[in-house]
Amino acid sequence: MKHLAVVLALFICIPSATSAQVDSAQLVATYREIALRIIAASMKDSLAYERLAELCDTFGPRLSGSENLERAIDWCLAKMKADGFDKVQGEPVMVPRWVRGKETCQLISPRAHNIAVLGLGGSIPTPKNGITAEVLVVRDFDELDARASEAKGKIVLFNTPFTQYGQTVRVRVLGAQRAAKVGAVASLIRSVGPFSLYTPHTGGMAYADSIPKIPHAAISLEDAEMLARMQKRGQKVVVKLVLESKQLPDSPSRNVIAEIRGSEKPDEIVVFGGHIDSWDVGQGAMDDAGGCIAAWHALKVIQSLGLRARRTLRVVLWTNEENGFRGATAYAEAHKHEKHVLAIESDAGVFKPTGFGFTGKDSVLQIIKAISGLLTPIDAARITLGGGGADIAPLMQQGVPGLGLQVDGSRYFWYHHTHADTVDKLNPEELNRCVAAMAIMAFVAADLP
Amino acid sequence: MKHLAVVLALFICIPSATSAQVDSAQLVATYREIALRIIAASMKDSLAYERLAELCDTFGPRLSGSENLERAIDWCLAKMKADGFDKVQGEPVMVPRWVRGKETCQLISPRAHNIAVLGLGGSIPTPKNGITAEVLVVRDFDELDARASEAKGKIVLFNTPFTQYGQTVRVRVLGAQRAAKVGAVASLIRSVGPFSLYTPHTGGMAYADSIPKIPHAAISLEDAEMLARMQKRGQKVVVKLVLESKQLPDSPSRNVIAEIRGSEKPDEIVVFGGHIDSWDVGQGAMDDAGGCIAAWHALKVIQSLGLRARRTLRVVLWTNEENGFRGATAYAEAHKHEKHVLAIESDAGVFKPTGFGFTGKDSVLQIIKAISGLLTPIDAARITLGGGGADIAPLMQQGVPGLGLQVDGSRYFWYHHTHADTVDKLNPEELNRCVAAMAIMAFVAADLP
Repeated sequence: MKHLAVVLALFICIPSATSAQVDSAQLVATYREIALRIIAASMKDSLAYERLAELCDTFGPRLSGSENLERAIDWCLAKMKADGFDKVQGEPVMVPRWVRGKETCQLISPRAHNIAVLGLGGSIPTPKNGITAEVLVVRDFDELDARASEAKGKIVLFNTPFTQYGQTVRVRVLGAQRAAKVGAVASLIRSVGPFSLYTPHTGGMAYADSIPKIPHAAISLEDAEMLARMQKRGQKVVVKLVLESKQLPDSPSRNVIAEIRGSEKPDEIVVFGGHIDSWDVGQGAMDDAGGCIAAWHALKVIQSLGLRARRTLRVVLWTNEENGFRGATAYAEAHKHEKHVLAIESDAGVFKPTGFGFTGKDSVLQIIKAISGLLTPIDAARITLGGGGADIAPLMQQGVPGLGLQVDGSRYFWYHHTHADTVDKLNPEELNRCVAAMAIMAFVAADLP
Repeated sequence: MKHLAVVLALFICIPSATSAQVDSAQLVATYREIALRIIAASMKDSLAYERLAELCDTFGPRLSGSENLERAIDWCLAKMKADGFDKVQGEPVMVPRWVRGKETCQLISPRAHNIAVLGLGGSIPTPKNGITAEVLVVRDFDELDARASEAKGKIVLFNTPFTQYGQTVRVRVLGAQRAAKVGAVASLIRSVGPFSLYTPHTGGMAYADSIPKIPHAAISLEDAEMLARMQKRGQKVVVKLVLESKQLPDSPSRNVIAEIRGSEKPDEIVVFGGHIDSWDVGQGAMDDAGGCIAAWHALKVIQSLGLRARRTLRVVLWTNEENGFRGATAYAEAHKHEKHVLAIESDAGVFKPTGFGFTGKDSVLQIIKAISGLLTPIDAARITLGGGGADIAPLMQQGVPGLGLQVDGSRYFWYHHTHADTVDKLNPEELNRCVAAMAIMAFVAADLP
């Protein structure tokens, strides 16, 4: 996000004269009626939300390798077939299979207290009897470096306040490496989120081959702050951490694909979607079942209006975004000989949409900005620079322009990777707006001469 | 709160002519300098907050009958003695002792899912193997009455959205009775709170001798909504509830008392305080360690300034407010021959104070309103009608005028009776304002000729 801000600052300086090549007014005039029909069809009922809720409630969270995920994929494929798209298929992908197992974290000194904990995805387990050690609380990597001599044999707790996700998430991803490097026997982080109701957040983490692997887990803001206060009072803080996680052999999963073939250039593709896997807590409702449903129902709305674009519209529900990116990588590899003209991702929650973030050439940007004029009726016409996430990153690396649906994400990181990522936080009207935004952007991009 | 609104509406109609007897301007002139000194002394450091944090961190939650509570009381008494008040003592009270024990709630059908649960205080346990039964989800008592014939043998879930605490809490207090009356084998409630991050709330509940007792527990908003959606889809919802709670014999506790004796009328007392017990989750930081510290430090600030009022200033930290009111009842009984001129309670969290709510005669109200003029510098001068809670209720029943400290409680019920009632939600500056408000109100009321 920091990077995005820098890019945005540059963007503002681009003279508007560069946009001369696209006749925005004509594009809007050509597609206005279709866009209004898409909006009306998207907003007319709560079917998208009901499907989202059914998906979330019926299968629960959908971690890669789980039966939940594969059953959810079966369900999507069956419903998509019933929706009558031109092509519906699952494309096999082998995915990693990390299983959480039992987890406990007990404060032993200065008093007994059960600390809510979520192991971070990919963490090795502790020994069976756990790891009992004194805790060294630090604020960040800098403080750890300054106190490196104190870390040996301890559990390092990174009590890092949330600033921006892209910044704060570094302690989650790299914390175990940094702590192990200075001799820690395990590492804990304050969960990556700006607000907590005693809410631990899980998420991915990484080991390095050159550094010993140590168990790595997240605790709540509340307990992290308490342990910091205890240390500040001069109290010896001792914790017993037990993680029974397992890394099992890779397991079969699938990317879900549904298409409406193009009328004139069926081999040119606008691909759009979200990721069907989630972390193993909550329901993965906004991360990212909502994004999947927004893309799927965008296709469904287009289908229901009898619209067929010149190019092929393809929805992909990528698997294994959360802990491996295997779905995105496999898709980009398997389809590298196809011509993708645009890739659109929704993975920021399906709250009220504000527009899209764009990554690509300026000539394409001008087209996207012109199309965005059609999103004014749903107040989602803002195009910013820097967009698209992990699922379309391999395509973008191949040179495909990328868009990410942007939404009012003011509370997104309250829920992110927690038991509270559930469908009740979303609502039918905002989801329908996301459907409309995805449908208009994808359809018009695919239909332009 | 509904009642308060009605009272307030009446209050607005009282002609201002009735306030003629108190010379507000003179009162403010007399005490302005003292009030400003109290404010300055209250705001000058973060000692009150540090003490609050130490109390919360060192002992954890303080349920009646627990060692945590009695150790916290010992700590308060020792610190108060060190503070050098004229009198510090613990007054013995026998309190009920309910112990939570292990609790689980598992969704069995339509899919397996661990439901976060908190038994409600006083609930009987389930049989050892739990209660496994179909769930009937209703919105409220009215819907249960309408569907009474469907409840027999089932677990009734009250999925009641939060409106106002005083209203919604009825399902927590009376839900087990209402469900048992129509043949339910256990009852669950959607936790009483307006916002949830998968956050169950505990709290008190009541049985009636004439109705069978059934286990009664709270689940999160998220799961309550999910079970409601499942039922709406026509799915059979089955839950296994295990509560291992125990009601042990009454156990000794204490009300904590600290005084600065009056210089002229030591037998006349202004009593102010909060409750030292809490529920057995989180830290009971705002409910009500914060209220205790606000009162205690109000006395400490008065002491530190060398002030001595004409009447006695007495802080009481009542025990057992949450599940028995034994502390409040015992205090009122033991001290019924003393002359209490005013009772002030802080039990709404120590967020930014706005003023006080008042219950009592109009003649006293005019004095309170005059004193409130001194709270203008900290923006806490609003006096409303209807104030004081459970701890001073027995005194108010004896005719003692009552005041309740009022604060910006916009998020209070997010945290109330949950694992998230922790000291990090509060801050030194707002707590200091509460200290100042309590000190000024208590001192001036005790010092008026």
